[in-house]
Amino acid sequence: VKAAIVAVGSELLGPSRLDTNSLWLAGKLDEAGIPVVRKACVGDDAGAIAAEIREASRRAPIVVVTGGLGPTADDLTREAVGEFSGRPSAIDPGILEEIRGRFARRGIAMPAINEKQALVVEGTRPLRNPRGSAPGIWLETEEGIVACLPGVPSEMKRMFEELVFPEIVRRFAAPPRSRRVLKIAAMGESAVEERVGPVYAKWSAHAFTILASVGEVQLHLVAAGAPEVAARLLDAQTEDFERALPGRIYGRDDDTLESVVGARLRDLGATLATAESCTGGLIAQRITDVPGSSDYFRGGVVAYANDVKTGALGVRPETLAAHGAVSEETAREMAEGARGKFGADFALSATGVAGPGGGTPEKPVGSVWIALAAKGRETRARFLRPPGDRATIRAWTASAALEMLRRTMAGADTD
Amino acid sequence: VKAAIVAVGSELLGPSRLDTNSLWLAGKLDEAGIPVVRKACVGDDAGAIAAEIREASRRAPIVVVTGGLGPTADDLTREAVGEFSGRPSAIDPGILEEIRGRFARRGIAMPAINEKQALVVEGTRPLRNPRGSAPGIWLETEEGIVACLPGVPSEMKRMFEELVFPEIVRRFAAPPRSRRVLKIAAMGESAVEERVGPVYAKWSAHAFTILASVGEVQLHLVAAGAPEVAARLLDAQTEDFERALPGRIYGRDDDTLESVVGARLRDLGATLATAESCTGGLIAQRITDVPGSSDYFRGGVVAYANDVKTGALGVRPETLAAHGAVSEETAREMAEGARGKFGADFALSATGVAGPGGGTPEKPVGSVWIALAAKGRETRARFLRPPGDRATIRAWTASAALEMLRRTMAGADTD
Repeated sequence: VKAAIVAVGSELLGPSRLDTNSLWLAGKLDEAGIPVVRKACVGDDAGAIAAEIREASRRAPIVVVTGGLGPTADDLTREAVGEFSGRPSAIDPGILEEIRGRFARRGIAMPAINEKQALVVEGTRPLRNPRGSAPGIWLETEEGIVACLPGVPSEMKRMFEELVFPEIVRRFAAPPRSRRVLKIAAMGESAVEERVGPVYAKWSAHAFTILASVGEVQLHLVAAGAPEVAARLLDAQTEDFERALPGRIYGRDDDTLESVVGARLRDLGATLATAESCTGGLIAQRITDVPGSSDYFRGGVVAYANDVKTGALGVRPETLAAHGAVSEETAREMAEGARGKFGADFALSATGVAGPGGGTPEKPVGSVWIALAAKGRETRARFLRPPGDRATIRAWTASAALEMLRRTMAGADTD
Repeated sequence: VKAAIVAVGSELLGPSRLDTNSLWLAGKLDEAGIPVVRKACVGDDAGAIAAEIREASRRAPIVVVTGGLGPTADDLTREAVGEFSGRPSAIDPGILEEIRGRFARRGIAMPAINEKQALVVEGTRPLRNPRGSAPGIWLETEEGIVACLPGVPSEMKRMFEELVFPEIVRRFAAPPRSRRVLKIAAMGESAVEERVGPVYAKWSAHAFTILASVGEVQLHLVAAGAPEVAARLLDAQTEDFERALPGRIYGRDDDTLESVVGARLRDLGATLATAESCTGGLIAQRITDVPGSSDYFRGGVVAYANDVKTGALGVRPETLAAHGAVSEETAREMAEGARGKFGADFALSATGVAGPGGGTPEKPVGSVWIALAAKGRETRARFLRPPGDRATIRAWTASAALEMLRRTMAGADTD
């Protein structure tokens, strides 16, 4: 059993608005184990809406349409349902009375344009809207059902919860599904994919999705069945992924790299400082995105000018002269300087060429050094070469630095 | 001439991700006077993707497909194009060489799975991807064209701009429309709306759109006709908006608050430093988002712990004891400390309660002080009370601080 969603409204086809109703609907349908296989947005045009409903019901027995039920001339979902089903429509006196009553209770006469909201296509069932004037439409087809709901999120949600969802569950009851997301930082998508190939092969009857954004790869797992059964399956799969990516899965679901790093620092009773050049404050900003980060984050220096690196972080002028600002030695001294200055247990540093200018043949754009100074341990540095533009280089570098700290705290930073 | 968009990716059908690429594409196509009449999202299933491409090209002569061109097993847009066009595909040795070269330049051997990105469907033309390993696909059909681009926004945008858009404009030229975006920082949407009411009334035959995000309001203007004629109309409207919002429109179109502030600092030959508590590095990060910011940005301190405020910024312990970390006095001393420490002409500071914890009856969550120290002028401070959650409070504060500096440099900071 699958579902398809159609969102109606010309505003959803422009440069500024997205159909966010479908996110909520996808979450609800997923609760019933029903995947959304297709979404479409269409403008205020009865023929086009009818064509989308037709196409959607060809793909899935459950079709949810949102929007186009208002009173204005460009609200055309009712007309589209008429066209799709090939049946005439007529004013339903009961609904008309109800809409009139809504206005009357607010001391207003019903505007004439609202009359069309009482139009009911023959063979369909109106869905009562407790929050607004637009009734929904329930239509049975040979293949399944079509439910049309208003586009206003609060009205749509309440009507779906109360009138549509129970009916869907009753008719199309599917086994529930559990989901888990495993997260990996500072590793490329292809590198992850290559390592998890054998896990995919082992669990070939199961669907995994791999999703990449800058500095992060996510593995999406899904399992059907009762929650405890599904959890056991997901646990077994997780174990295999962890074996394929030893020490590299930093967290799950709502974890972020900075929340995991922060929780670990708190557990250890340890503190952190930062010394940033090319990332320009991004590492500190990500750490402090986490509520309560003042428990472990002491502070940082954004050392953009070279004399700030020497003055505020104690990088030796000879180091800068001999190796340059983008060098292993400078990265090490920045981290050590920040650790000393802020009296922290750990300090992260980053220095690199974020571009687009500033590259040289020896140190092209994208050359980055990060370092981690830790109390009672030797300072370690790593060279990175993230691809992409300035923003990508900066974001990747911040993730790599946080991941270096995380792995060090986990005793796993060996590569 | 119309366009349709197909976004590929099972993750776009779940409860957490939307196809945001289509917003940017709709904006670009609109520049060429081409409306998007339909959007669809489809999962990682070659047959379903092929069906969507077929449906889309029935509705519009221009079809843009995003996503599904990566190297992994669930990247199936290439296969779908083969199915849609009914033609075989083969590895293109030139493209394979290029992909190998991309990896080689980073000192990595190409993973075997990337080989499939060199598959080219007979009768289609590959589109070079200067930023990633996934080439795009250009396909001519009887009805028009189908362009497939990667889902990664930076790659998609660059390839559309350079390879797809010029060709679309050449073939499907529509009457031009000119657009202009006017930007206002650190002012609420309703406050802007109230002040521009008379401008809306004066130009009632024209459509304006007001768009708000955290810390920024945008006014979108559009004019039809030849570029010079449209520009004159937009200039006249801009003048009226500037009169309604004196000194508050910080820039246009691609300007960002940080790029405008940076350009002004460069013009003045002035330098900047930052001292951040609640924003945790966000102000420095935004300033250094701008390429070339090392010309005017000297550095900053993220002073999260109180003893960092005293130690690294020279805030007096008595000030902290008497007024607290979130106070006008502390904000002033932080800004002055950063200016002195970094030898900068200007220094911005921010200290506040970003929440969710840490609020008190006297200083509830959202209480923020920002200050600006400037060479040869009195330090000025301002109290803010941004609404919203932690992320919103931090983002609003960073915008307000940058706007305070911008207005000061423009000689306009009087409110």
